[in-house]
Amino acid sequence: MTSLDELPIRDDLRGKSPYGAPQQTVPVALNVNENTHPIPEDVAHDIIARVAAAILHLNRYPDREFTELRRSLAEYLGHGLEAAQIWAANGSNEVLQHILQAYGGPGRVALGFSPTYSMYGLLASGTGTGWIMAARDDEFEVSTETAVRAVQEHDPDVVLLCAPNNPTGTPLALDTIRAVADAARGVVVVDEAYFEFAEPGTPSALTLLEGRPRLLVSRTMSKAFAFAGARVGYLAGDPAAIDALRLVRLPYHLSALTQAAALGALAHSSEMLAMVDEIRGQRERISAELSRLGFHPYRSGSNFVLFGGVDEPHAVFEALLERGILIREIGIPGHLRVTAGTEAETSAFLEAIALFAPERPNRIAV
Amino acid sequence: MTSLDELPIRDDLRGKSPYGAPQQTVPVALNVNENTHPIPEDVAHDIIARVAAAILHLNRYPDREFTELRRSLAEYLGHGLEAAQIWAANGSNEVLQHILQAYGGPGRVALGFSPTYSMYGLLASGTGTGWIMAARDDEFEVSTETAVRAVQEHDPDVVLLCAPNNPTGTPLALDTIRAVADAARGVVVVDEAYFEFAEPGTPSALTLLEGRPRLLVSRTMSKAFAFAGARVGYLAGDPAAIDALRLVRLPYHLSALTQAAALGALAHSSEMLAMVDEIRGQRERISAELSRLGFHPYRSGSNFVLFGGVDEPHAVFEALLERGILIREIGIPGHLRVTAGTEAETSAFLEAIALFAPERPNRIAV
Repeated sequence: MTSLDELPIRDDLRGKSPYGAPQQTVPVALNVNENTHPIPEDVAHDIIARVAAAILHLNRYPDREFTELRRSLAEYLGHGLEAAQIWAANGSNEVLQHILQAYGGPGRVALGFSPTYSMYGLLASGTGTGWIMAARDDEFEVSTETAVRAVQEHDPDVVLLCAPNNPTGTPLALDTIRAVADAARGVVVVDEAYFEFAEPGTPSALTLLEGRPRLLVSRTMSKAFAFAGARVGYLAGDPAAIDALRLVRLPYHLSALTQAAALGALAHSSEMLAMVDEIRGQRERISAELSRLGFHPYRSGSNFVLFGGVDEPHAVFEALLERGILIREIGIPGHLRVTAGTEAETSAFLEAIALFAPERPNRIAV
Repeated sequence: MTSLDELPIRDDLRGKSPYGAPQQTVPVALNVNENTHPIPEDVAHDIIARVAAAILHLNRYPDREFTELRRSLAEYLGHGLEAAQIWAANGSNEVLQHILQAYGGPGRVALGFSPTYSMYGLLASGTGTGWIMAARDDEFEVSTETAVRAVQEHDPDVVLLCAPNNPTGTPLALDTIRAVADAARGVVVVDEAYFEFAEPGTPSALTLLEGRPRLLVSRTMSKAFAFAGARVGYLAGDPAAIDALRLVRLPYHLSALTQAAALGALAHSSEMLAMVDEIRGQRERISAELSRLGFHPYRSGSNFVLFGGVDEPHAVFEALLERGILIREIGIPGHLRVTAGTEAETSAFLEAIALFAPERPNRIAV
């Protein structure tokens, strides 16, 4: 049998393992920040009708410029955006890949603030872009001073700001984003994958786009829209900055099924987003309860909570898994991450994690 | 308004235009080698039912390893292939991108035989892989001697053999593929996108996989399966060679909708492929009639025909378009390419092209 080592793969891939959280079927899956609420039934029916219509023409290539989808995404985002300012791809990973292919690449570097979304480093590597990780401040926050200093020090071609940040959940102030955009020579990407879960009234980086052609704001339908399985990420920016992505995307990258399904979901955005408030409530409940138990949850503007104060994260992870509850080890010593699920899922997690609470006298030894 | 020139795009992208045949709505579209036969209605219903079931769980990420789809593709291909020998992605373009990311990249080169599928050069450029085009023999054929000589001269990391070749339609002998696979140090990809349209009994490069871990055979569901809108390309090879692609793909690259739709089509592969014989018949009709008219059609194992002997290809292209018939200018002086459509579409094309025939005394001057 041939082994990978005998094959002429690229040198920088040797010894590497593929990205990926384990995919296990468990009663309570709170590991990959999915929206655990299924799509409302009447919305599902409309999506099915639109996808069915698309299937009848699947023998033809899809609209390469996904014009109707761009128009619909612009309308959803608001802020006076137009179709020419919108891009979309198979998940925000592919959106970010397009950005790095167009504005990064060999001899160029991207900057992020560690710990941050682990795909950034993999996407940089996959596009031959250098990857620099600057440090965060205490509590995984990033102050304007810290952010601007890192930009000045490293002069990156691409800055990746995850706001709120994954896997820490920490929000990023709009003032900080503005200061980075104004200090950077290169392209500044604000990854707002979890934006819809922010405190109501939090301003989006979309408000900064006007007059800043090197600023790009990415979003995803995976989280707030409960659409992870459909793989739809999108981006807003200057029409010219968006146009550059047409040079690197694969032609017909968005299938007719993807376009039809996304249009269906966007036609019902208020219903699709109705669960966001409820999820935010469960997140607040998790944070409050973990605090009470003596864990150390971080400030979160997302649909998940990172918490420290876990003596043996791997043992706790395994113990919860035995109880049918899957959460996430994210490689920060003493920390675990949990997604805010439905009320019942959240209760199951909180009951289980209480057994391992630092401040519980009769806690289970792991 | 910002222009692309003012933005910090990669130097090698400056001045480039995006790939793409014009997408126009015309009565007879024979320009992008689609299967012009829609999906049979009963198959469409089954696909819709499967996709509808997937939509109910779209809030969850799809199966990252698309295990059921791999199993189904292996079964369709036959030749004793197993799921671990199969890869798939959003169109064979993405499959080829994964191959170049894993086995090409900066400092490495890919070799093809020009003229060939124009995406190869773009995919090489997008992955930082050098792109060498060796010349074809007369009639756009590639002999074993020509192929092996080019491999020996350029010592490529990746060889891309399009068999049959796009845009020329010319088949490639299995002996030639075997000789290239045995001569090459690098990975050899046989792109069989149009294989199902070959003369019945033509052996696939799949028959050469055993004992050749650097040989990869790609296919697509776009053409024979009439599935261009669904974006499903796939690949067969050694399990280790396939496993390497997991290092470069984006996680969850195949949506739950794509997986469900492809499974539906594969469950009805004989019905989906029933139109292949008919399309092959129309291709033969096109070749015979173009010959009779004094054009020079090339040997084709695909669902399209390249033909020379066109004095002014652009004028003929425009004149046909005015008549509602869209064919393809592919940049070879004196040549045009046409897809074999339904019988009616083919008749419309043949009637129109006859007006510009070299051997017709009352031809229309263009």
